[in-house]
Amino acid sequence: MIIVLKPDVTQEQKDYIIERMHKLGLSPHVSRGVERTIIGVIGPEDVLRVTPLEAFPGVEKVLPVLAPYRLVSREFKAEDSIIDLGKDVKIGAGKVVVIAGPCAIESPTLLREIASQVKKEGVMVLRGGAFKPRTSPYSFQGLGQEALEYLKQVGDELGMVTVTEVMDPRDVKMVARYADILQIGARNMQNFNLLREVGETQKPILLKRGMSSTIKEWLMSAEYILSGGNFNVILCERGIRTFEDFTRSTLDVSAIPAVKYLSHLPIVVDPSHAAGKWNLVPALSRAAVAAGCDGLIIEVHSHPEEAFSDGVQSLLPEKFTQLMQELRILIKAIGRKI
Amino acid sequence: MIIVLKPDVTQEQKDYIIERMHKLGLSPHVSRGVERTIIGVIGPEDVLRVTPLEAFPGVEKVLPVLAPYRLVSREFKAEDSIIDLGKDVKIGAGKVVVIAGPCAIESPTLLREIASQVKKEGVMVLRGGAFKPRTSPYSFQGLGQEALEYLKQVGDELGMVTVTEVMDPRDVKMVARYADILQIGARNMQNFNLLREVGETQKPILLKRGMSSTIKEWLMSAEYILSGGNFNVILCERGIRTFEDFTRSTLDVSAIPAVKYLSHLPIVVDPSHAAGKWNLVPALSRAAVAAGCDGLIIEVHSHPEEAFSDGVQSLLPEKFTQLMQELRILIKAIGRKI
Amino acid sequence: MIIVLKPDVTQEQKDYIIERMHKLGLSPHVSRGVERTIIGVIGPEDVLRVTPLEAFPGVEKVLPVLAPYRLVSREFKAEDSIIDLGKDVKIGAGKVVVIAGPCAIESPTLLREIASQVKKEGVMVLRGGAFKPRTSPYSFQGLGQEALEYLKQVGDELGMVTVTEVMDPRDVKMVARYADILQIGARNMQNFNLLREVGETQKPILLKRGMSSTIKEWLMSAEYILSGGNFNVILCERGIRTFEDFTRSTLDVSAIPAVKYLSHLPIVVDPSHAAGKWNLVPALSRAAVAAGCDGLIIEVHSHPEEAFSDGVQSLLPEKFTQLMQELRILIKAIGRKI
Amino acid sequence: MIIVLKPDVTQEQKDYIIERMHKLGLSPHVSRGVERTIIGVIGPEDVLRVTPLEAFPGVEKVLPVLAPYRLVSREFKAEDSIIDLGKDVKIGAGKVVVIAGPCAIESPTLLREIASQVKKEGVMVLRGGAFKPRTSPYSFQGLGQEALEYLKQVGDELGMVTVTEVMDPRDVKMVARYADILQIGARNMQNFNLLREVGETQKPILLKRGMSSTIKEWLMSAEYILSGGNFNVILCERGIRTFEDFTRSTLDVSAIPAVKYLSHLPIVVDPSHAAGKWNLVPALSRAAVAAGCDGLIIEVHSHPEEAFSDGVQSLLPEKFTQLMQELRILIKAIGRKI
Repeated sequence: MIIVLKPDVTQEQKDYIIERMHKLGLSPHVSRGVERTIIGVIGPEDVLRVTPLEAFPGVEKVLPVLAPYRLVSREFKAEDSIIDLGKDVKIGAGKVVVIAGPCAIESPTLLREIASQVKKEGVMVLRGGAFKPRTSPYSFQGLGQEALEYLKQVGDELGMVTVTEVMDPRDVKMVARYADILQIGARNMQNFNLLREVGETQKPILLKRGMSSTIKEWLMSAEYILSGGNFNVILCERGIRTFEDFTRSTLDVSAIPAVKYLSHLPIVVDPSHAAGKWNLVPALSRAAVAAGCDGLIIEVHSHPEEAFSDGVQSLLPEKFTQLMQELRILIKAIGRKI
Repeated sequence: MIIVLKPDVTQEQKDYIIERMHKLGLSPHVSRGVERTIIGVIGPEDVLRVTPLEAFPGVEKVLPVLAPYRLVSREFKAEDSIIDLGKDVKIGAGKVVVIAGPCAIESPTLLREIASQVKKEGVMVLRGGAFKPRTSPYSFQGLGQEALEYLKQVGDELGMVTVTEVMDPRDVKMVARYADILQIGARNMQNFNLLREVGETQKPILLKRGMSSTIKEWLMSAEYILSGGNFNVILCERGIRTFEDFTRSTLDVSAIPAVKYLSHLPIVVDPSHAAGKWNLVPALSRAAVAAGCDGLIIEVHSHPEEAFSDGVQSLLPEKFTQLMQELRILIKAIGRKI
Repeated sequence: MIIVLKPDVTQEQKDYIIERMHKLGLSPHVSRGVERTIIGVIGPEDVLRVTPLEAFPGVEKVLPVLAPYRLVSREFKAEDSIIDLGKDVKIGAGKVVVIAGPCAIESPTLLREIASQVKKEGVMVLRGGAFKPRTSPYSFQGLGQEALEYLKQVGDELGMVTVTEVMDPRDVKMVARYADILQIGARNMQNFNLLREVGETQKPILLKRGMSSTIKEWLMSAEYILSGGNFNVILCERGIRTFEDFTRSTLDVSAIPAVKYLSHLPIVVDPSHAAGKWNLVPALSRAAVAAGCDGLIIEVHSHPEEAFSDGVQSLLPEKFTQLMQELRILIKAIGRKI
Repeated sequence: MIIVLKPDVTQEQKDYIIERMHKLGLSPHVSRGVERTIIGVIGPEDVLRVTPLEAFPGVEKVLPVLAPYRLVSREFKAEDSIIDLGKDVKIGAGKVVVIAGPCAIESPTLLREIASQVKKEGVMVLRGGAFKPRTSPYSFQGLGQEALEYLKQVGDELGMVTVTEVMDPRDVKMVARYADILQIGARNMQNFNLLREVGETQKPILLKRGMSSTIKEWLMSAEYILSGGNFNVILCERGIRTFEDFTRSTLDVSAIPAVKYLSHLPIVVDPSHAAGKWNLVPALSRAAVAAGCDGLIIEVHSHPEEAFSDGVQSLLPEKFTQLMQELRILIKAIGRKI
């Protein structure tokens, strides 16, 4: 950590800072420049991070040298993490894993219908919401545990891995009994108690990026889960909030190579929520794959007009089939598998 | 709701939409313009909101006419809501209510010291965190229930109303036994299960605006609480996330008159978290008061260098005293009370 | 256009609005809903756009039905525009056109060296800055007209089309004598006098998106050029400003399908400025191509450490060669040509 | 400047960087930490700023120690700059200077009418647009030189200082013959040629903040003008672009104390453009004054419904009178003058 002192810092203030650094077991090194004096501090930055150095008199600013995360970093683990999702499906091992299904689980029949359709295209992971975070208290909130039963049933029947969102720390154990992968939604990316709770399971966790979260904060949220003992974290980019309003969110495609550079964790992309419009989903899916993502999570609905949630951004099964054809060619061309 | 049709919409598509509107018990009115045909739909927009009209073939876009919230709106209730915080403190009744205290409760001694100092300046509401949402799993997370005991004790001793954050739906009842006001933090503004849980108490709720939430979404989160039966909601503007990085967040001072226009709920401002720098706190506090807020929530710490959390943005008691002097003059000048 | 009236609008206010609409030669249609009365106005929205309807007493809000642009829209022209760049290079006709070269033109030798290297990879369009918009008055501002001479010379020698930025309306004619394509930089996207000036030439214009511009505003800036009589506009997405700071800007990859949906104009992508880091450029280039862009503009420098400008985001020629190999495979796979 | 090296940096890479620093006439100091080696470089940062250090092999990141601006900084000049606007009006000297008038100059009669009305409230500076930057080529673009004549005439008649926008470097000298203060609009904040052109006059320049500009970039734009020899720069905060869409822009009220901390230049606030709604203007004006701004620039129109531009955000003269009454009380209360 580098402490930049104010131009009018007094000797007394400087001595005080140095003394405090020594007390914390750190080694401060003072460099006097033409316009500023700086103190480089060697030692564990974690100790410094909890000390509000900028509150010290005479300090102009503090520049951290290290990233605040550890377990999720490439430095901690150089090779890509491969996560076993069960039923012979692995993510992070080179294959592009496509996750598909309806936004919300509305009935066993409809779920089975959509699941069969996407399964035909080679999809091995079925998505479907049982608990839906809705901005309005008057909107459909999901069928809850009933929906989880349908999900498990259809997953078992078709031999598909299942993923569903968990919103409440009280539900983690229950949801974990039904689903193979637990999803943490964008709105809960910094629901730290929920992160801790899923960190105590050994289930794969699909961690969506918060709508206004930096990549660093997203990795810090993953760090919560890893530090709890669960290393099975899959990051999911789903768009960030910007001033642009043609799309629901702005898909941050750069997050794919950025995460690959900073972390060993696999990353999947959700083009459906990012775009908020089904007709943009194919282009965004192709872009994400070309940028090197490990998987996609796509909303598919056979009757989008009647969907209880997010019908506007769901692909019809025939459009999904067409997209999968394009993706297979693309994935092969870039030397990967599906 | 207005449905704008595509220029190449077919008669069949139009008929289908009209038929569906009738089935939903709504009255569609078609207007044929030079370049577009539009369908105005009369009837409860709530029914329409859950129907994904934009997924219908032939639809270009859908323009809502009404706001999605109801109970929180000025239209529902024209007069300002006045919320009784206990101990003869009311918010929304004209007086500017100042809430002050440390970011986190670190010890009973320190809490009592800071509380006494702010009480001397007329502060009637004491803030102090027991559960701290921290971006890093390695940072201090608060003293939990122990801190709540200190808070209650000091509040009782000094006759002050107390406010503290609750982060977990499992903790709501417990925290409600200790504190007078429950705070929902920015990161939990869309933690809908937590909102529902506090909606079932009758405690005053301080609802912080999410870092990337629009005013509309913030009001929708309040709507969750009101629709659960608890009308005692105080909104708290604490800055939104933008590209500007000199400040921690960008205080959206326009939210004050905007909320006053749209809603009957009182609004307080947190200049400490918005700025992230103590030296900007006085200017932002004055701005918020001049813009018409109902209260302020300010971090004060007698030893900010040693604070476990957010020392950089805490005011020293003597700076707080100075700010209160300025505010008293300002508040009097604009014809309000403190 | 739809005028939504306030719930407490008076008859007198309503009559006044209707009367004004008639005077403007428009046909107002009143619909009385349960909670609001709305007035649909049929006729040219352009007339309405300059009338501040929201300033009328009794008006709550105004909802436009049509987009504000015309000439750039798909509705105006359904087929993709193909723009002839000279020297047998066309953009918008299916081929992916790669534009490459140094950020700034530093010397004829260096320019020739880099141009030859990218030419070997099949690049037909050479970029190079003569006038550099720099945030600091103390930074290198470009070699000006001298650089234009080098650009023309190298372009002629190697048979390459050239593109360079013009920043000042006074320079348009002069720059047009040297370069084949005129670039309007992100900072000048709303320099309307400059837009008008290039609108009076018949040169192809590469119009970069402003850092905080919506797609709609970007298309409006293109409309300025088309309405001046120059239909040869190429849009260039170069990243928008968000809170994310790992990248210099956030590449809005969704802008590619969005522009294709809304407009007939070709779109190229600048991954170098978006990322601000050379190591993210290959992934973003692939993503842009997979999303359907008509071209790429990439910074290449043989000695990035010594570049006068933007060395950090320039690819070394060998990295560029590697990227072109990847792109050729990808472009073929998606059924396009390079 | 601090150079943070990668954990796997080689000795050769380190030596090369150090050698290059010496060649640039700088003194590098190497500190070896537990996890990273850093190189502190002492000497003029300007030299370093143009060297793309991050492009050097082995470099992880570069942390600047100093701000990139100089002449505009508090460090360069500790006391507040006072700018003489002519006709005995000074800004930066403690008084709050209110600038008012119509958005665009539409006719001499209307300008005189509005000017007289605001003059009665003590306003000494008259605003009025002759050249209007409009997002649509089809909107009213201002009356041009004709409007400047009206502005000069009315300013002379009423003894008021005048301010108007200049958009084109070709117009600077001409506009300077008519108006007392030249305004640089938000869209031109980084029109560097225009900045240089006004930097060569000695006229006071009102420099609006760009819609997506950081405070640092805004100060850099001011630096362009000062470095050209014109120190008469007044900064103008007019709102930044965020995701919030209730207001046209988000007024960044924190920019007021931030600019006061970083710079000696005066700052005024434009609540009309920030809000985009006249009914929010009074609250934002009061907030800006309470936060310590040196002035306000407010749109006033006697017939906002008929305004050619921005009628929605213009105050009626009677509302302006009411606001001025509030402001006089507020300004007196905070110990300043108007």
